[in-house]
Amino acid sequence: MPTTVTAGVDIGGTKVEIALVDAGGRIVASTRTPSGNGMDPASWVSSVKAALDDLCRQTPDARLKAMGVGFAGQIDARTGVVLGSPNVGWSDVPLLDMLRASLGLPVTLVNDVQAATWAEWKIGAGQGLSHLMGVFVGTGIGGGLVLDGKLYRGAGGSAGELGHTVLDKNGPFCKCGRQGCLEAHAGGWAIAVRAQEAVGQDRKAGRALLARVRGDSWAITAATVSEAAHSGDAFAQTLVRRIGEDLGAGIASAVNAFNPEMVILGGGVIEGMPELVDIVGEVVAARSLSAAASSLRIERARLGNLAGVIGAALMAQPLALA
Amino acid sequence: MPTTVTAGVDIGGTKVEIALVDAGGRIVASTRTPSGNGMDPASWVSSVKAALDDLCRQTPDARLKAMGVGFAGQIDARTGVVLGSPNVGWSDVPLLDMLRASLGLPVTLVNDVQAATWAEWKIGAGQGLSHLMGVFVGTGIGGGLVLDGKLYRGAGGSAGELGHTVLDKNGPFCKCGRQGCLEAHAGGWAIAVRAQEAVGQDRKAGRALLARVRGDSWAITAATVSEAAHSGDAFAQTLVRRIGEDLGAGIASAVNAFNPEMVILGGGVIEGMPELVDIVGEVVAARSLSAAASSLRIERARLGNLAGVIGAALMAQPLALA
Repeated sequence: MPTTVTAGVDIGGTKVEIALVDAGGRIVASTRTPSGNGMDPASWVSSVKAALDDLCRQTPDARLKAMGVGFAGQIDARTGVVLGSPNVGWSDVPLLDMLRASLGLPVTLVNDVQAATWAEWKIGAGQGLSHLMGVFVGTGIGGGLVLDGKLYRGAGGSAGELGHTVLDKNGPFCKCGRQGCLEAHAGGWAIAVRAQEAVGQDRKAGRALLARVRGDSWAITAATVSEAAHSGDAFAQTLVRRIGEDLGAGIASAVNAFNPEMVILGGGVIEGMPELVDIVGEVVAARSLSAAASSLRIERARLGNLAGVIGAALMAQPLALA
Repeated sequence: MPTTVTAGVDIGGTKVEIALVDAGGRIVASTRTPSGNGMDPASWVSSVKAALDDLCRQTPDARLKAMGVGFAGQIDARTGVVLGSPNVGWSDVPLLDMLRASLGLPVTLVNDVQAATWAEWKIGAGQGLSHLMGVFVGTGIGGGLVLDGKLYRGAGGSAGELGHTVLDKNGPFCKCGRQGCLEAHAGGWAIAVRAQEAVGQDRKAGRALLARVRGDSWAITAATVSEAAHSGDAFAQTLVRRIGEDLGAGIASAVNAFNPEMVILGGGVIEGMPELVDIVGEVVAARSLSAAASSLRIERARLGNLAGVIGAALMAQPLALA
């Protein structure tokens, strides 16, 4: 029996996940190609087409009807142009038009975190809700919003950039060029910087962290902190606690502003330090207004790093029906 | 010729504005009654009914079909229950049901700032847009959101509480009981506190402010700061600048999160210090992400302190047609 599928593509800085997904959000077939990072966009589009053709050959019963793309960067929602991406290195690329022309399929293009939030809403932690906020903490921090049962993209497509909420106007500088952003306190890169600085100030207290990087404090990453904390190192556990407090303070502001039913926390940093979910829950309960906090739930994402590719495919389903 | 009108009611801490408003948002007749502050809600509902009956007698051509109420407090959007209000002093009052029963009219109940944002969208600064954020700076700071061409109230009705965005996690305590909120930096009450503290630290530099309050620094209000700044006092002008910088930093976070087409600034503090609009514009341009800032406009509200009552009436129009 032929099955109608949509393709999902999740484009990050190091790899591209591609999958054929059925109407229930199950992956029928999947593959990976190198990221377009450093590649000319036209060649990259050809490589995606070739990968999709391969997947379709492997699954002769699948009828591919449409494609959804989640891209790690800022997209103009009106035109489908990639405005910029620190990870993929493209700017002003008319990606939506290029994909449509090359594939001859209906295509939709969103931010990768918007796609992941969509998946968690459709088949993950947020099923059945009308108002939810996805916060994904990886190297950076991104957010996605489902408001009144629809993905909310804002005027230009960039709604949900919760990583650049100002948490401390005099705080640390952010990679975005601004100061005191949430991401500069609790994104993966910032966790590494905080840990390196803390160890630099007190190498004795930080000896368990240093032991994991052969004494080279600059080699400490968020994963080093996570591993040391889980091995019982109190210094690393204190770092995790502080990161959770900052993440919670930033999320509390967004909870006041959006009044969602649920905040879903996901991304590599949350996978590595799942205890952050409880810390954020405590801080948000204490820091957000009671009207917004009273019926709020804070949950861990369920779909792991496949949320982006599944969400992108699910977003293309209405196009497959058209 | 009979004209169909809706009633708008704007309930604040000191007064209640009541108006009959036509389909174009023009006030046909209006009155004021005392606030329900300190009054039993049932007596207060009776006084609103009496005031409305009076207005209808004065305008025999007006056919009153529905009423909209903007209330200075937190409302459960699902039940129409007033959860609490620091200004009116009510909590757990089933105001929507009480008004419907007393008036025998269809009634809608929203937060007062949501009503004001609605008015600015329908007939004020934000006409024709799909995504806008109203920020009203009075004694406190409230916000209202029009997203995808609809008032966005969130899961429980409290969406848009931008005054309690955390601006500085270690910053001044807020009247909400939390720390570092935007309102605790730039709400009217906080402006007074900042000015009083600044004068206390340097009475010589603050002498122009002190002269306006006969030397009693505790009597300094936001209006004192505004008047001194407009008379050319550099000390007060510096205070206004700092207030604008903080207001801008808080609004920048919300601009990143919501990606609106326009931010409308209104309320008594903005009316008194309209130069804040330009300062906020500069700071938001510098502090928000380029994707969100590039097409953003920041405008002063146009409807002054009638926005609430007009907006409440306009929100009731769909009920009048039903």
